[in-house]
Amino acid sequence: MQTCKEIGEFGLIQKLFKNIPARRSDVILGTGDDAAAVIAEPGVLLLSTVDSQVEGVHFRWELISAAQLGHKLAAINLSDIAAMGGTPEFALINLSVPEDFPVEKVELFYDGLIKELDRWNVQIIGGNVSAAAVFSASLTLLGKEAPDHLKTRSGAEPGDWLCVTGSLGKGAAGFQLAENPDIVFDERSKVTAFWQTPEARIQAGQRLSGFSEVHAMIDVSDGLAGDGTHLCEAGRTGCIIFEDSLPIHPLVRKTAGTFGESLTDWALYGGEDYELLFAIDPGAFGKIKKDLSSIVPVTVIGEIISSEGVIRLKHKNGNLEPLRKQAWDHFRS
Amino acid sequence: MQTCKEIGEFGLIQKLFKNIPARRSDVILGTGDDAAAVIAEPGVLLLSTVDSQVEGVHFRWELISAAQLGHKLAAINLSDIAAMGGTPEFALINLSVPEDFPVEKVELFYDGLIKELDRWNVQIIGGNVSAAAVFSASLTLLGKEAPDHLKTRSGAEPGDWLCVTGSLGKGAAGFQLAENPDIVFDERSKVTAFWQTPEARIQAGQRLSGFSEVHAMIDVSDGLAGDGTHLCEAGRTGCIIFEDSLPIHPLVRKTAGTFGESLTDWALYGGEDYELLFAIDPGAFGKIKKDLSSIVPVTVIGEIISSEGVIRLKHKNGNLEPLRKQAWDHFRS
Repeated sequence: MQTCKEIGEFGLIQKLFKNIPARRSDVILGTGDDAAAVIAEPGVLLLSTVDSQVEGVHFRWELISAAQLGHKLAAINLSDIAAMGGTPEFALINLSVPEDFPVEKVELFYDGLIKELDRWNVQIIGGNVSAAAVFSASLTLLGKEAPDHLKTRSGAEPGDWLCVTGSLGKGAAGFQLAENPDIVFDERSKVTAFWQTPEARIQAGQRLSGFSEVHAMIDVSDGLAGDGTHLCEAGRTGCIIFEDSLPIHPLVRKTAGTFGESLTDWALYGGEDYELLFAIDPGAFGKIKKDLSSIVPVTVIGEIISSEGVIRLKHKNGNLEPLRKQAWDHFRS
Repeated sequence: MQTCKEIGEFGLIQKLFKNIPARRSDVILGTGDDAAAVIAEPGVLLLSTVDSQVEGVHFRWELISAAQLGHKLAAINLSDIAAMGGTPEFALINLSVPEDFPVEKVELFYDGLIKELDRWNVQIIGGNVSAAAVFSASLTLLGKEAPDHLKTRSGAEPGDWLCVTGSLGKGAAGFQLAENPDIVFDERSKVTAFWQTPEARIQAGQRLSGFSEVHAMIDVSDGLAGDGTHLCEAGRTGCIIFEDSLPIHPLVRKTAGTFGESLTDWALYGGEDYELLFAIDPGAFGKIKKDLSSIVPVTVIGEIISSEGVIRLKHKNGNLEPLRKQAWDHFRS
């Protein structure tokens, strides 16, 4: 009898969600993208997504405060709406809390959650609380979007440039430093904040959704290799990623140096960066970069190729290496 | 430092959700009712609700099969949409599953969930899977409704009759029998099914929502005493419940007899009946009962009084007894 650990998180998702037949004609996009899209009214799509944080799986309390966890749960869901180019609007929260858990800590979590949602004018409209062995919280986020602005994972074309907002490897650097509280590190809290309180690229996603030259978009939550694979698989393409183009924050570079870790591995496999990865018509790069310049830097990190499923890293020395199609698997961590 | 067990499930809900300021003008009904209602488009409300089933809190695997649990998770959420008089449309599922959990059992759960949602043409549009110490699943259900059909917990008026669909005490009877597998009982599976695979009163809720004489509505998930209290508190009224009017299924009566339990206690405090409790203009009772006759029986079980917060049971002998404002508390079970 096969166990969930054996099939893995993505195997289970594949089994459960990938083959749901579309029963309703008002479902534009069901399971399998960053968020779902259904027709709310003529000219308006309702977006929805759900994501969770489970104690012992996604976090341990030594690594993150309750308020930070609330912020993070908001941000990881906001990032899924950002990846569609949408506007977040409403949220429903499901909390499971141990009996002996301090009420004050639940309130701090909730304050952190609300504060981050408030920034985007998102209101919590539903909540459920239950006892449980460990703390876990799942958030359902609803949003809206104009149908002609919807950006999905599919649609990348051979010859497209692969771009990313901000920088990569931040989640891995922040986690590494949070896990090692005894290491002396200037600006420690700035780095751990990359992992504890990420920021969703809502504004950038909305700007990008206005460009018809943006052909496909996804958020980088599982790591560039994993999410790049998702984007290529959805569009039946491949891609080449340029190692020497990967944008890295100076503090992430310093952290990798401190721990003797590979920056490229962090960028490719670390995950939890919550940047936007998108494929564009190369001719539009100049105007897109300029349009987003006041919000976030945009970097070309690769190109889309026609060979389906071929994901390669081009090293600084010109060599091409097949990437592991690996993403973080919570059953195998 | 106060713990969640000390403050209790409802204390925590009160603390977190009851005082959320309405930030957005398109939120008609936020937390605190069976489902939330926001303006989706002019003339259409978007309903949403979230509820969960946690192993060791809401169920144990000896008492319920995976397929039954899937059915039940669908039904308890459908019941919240029914209580608003709405039409369910879309669902998002968040699953937390132990590493060593059989994949086949997840699939059986999921099949049970989908089958029950399919009955109401509800499509799953979003899913999330995570590892966890115990199995838990939370479902977010979205639906629609015409604004003038929206039924909330508030609105009951003194002199209104308090009515209920179907019968009460089924959840308690089914649970009691499931917990005692060695007791010989004819039609055992019919009784345990009351608890394992309840049916939401979607059609009845929709019919009731068409009557302006239905002033307030809630579903009976916590027990008549608890949900009656919720309805009275929301409307700043009280109520008197007539013990000898409580509708009881013959098999529930037989189960109570077998275990020597009080039928009245099961009806008042048992919970998990998923019937609709509603307050109506007495003059409309005849036509409402007739309109619902092909769907479900309707029974008058009490009346609304002006004394705020006074909830009394009128015994068969005419004596009045204050009811415990008690509902099932998952932190105190």
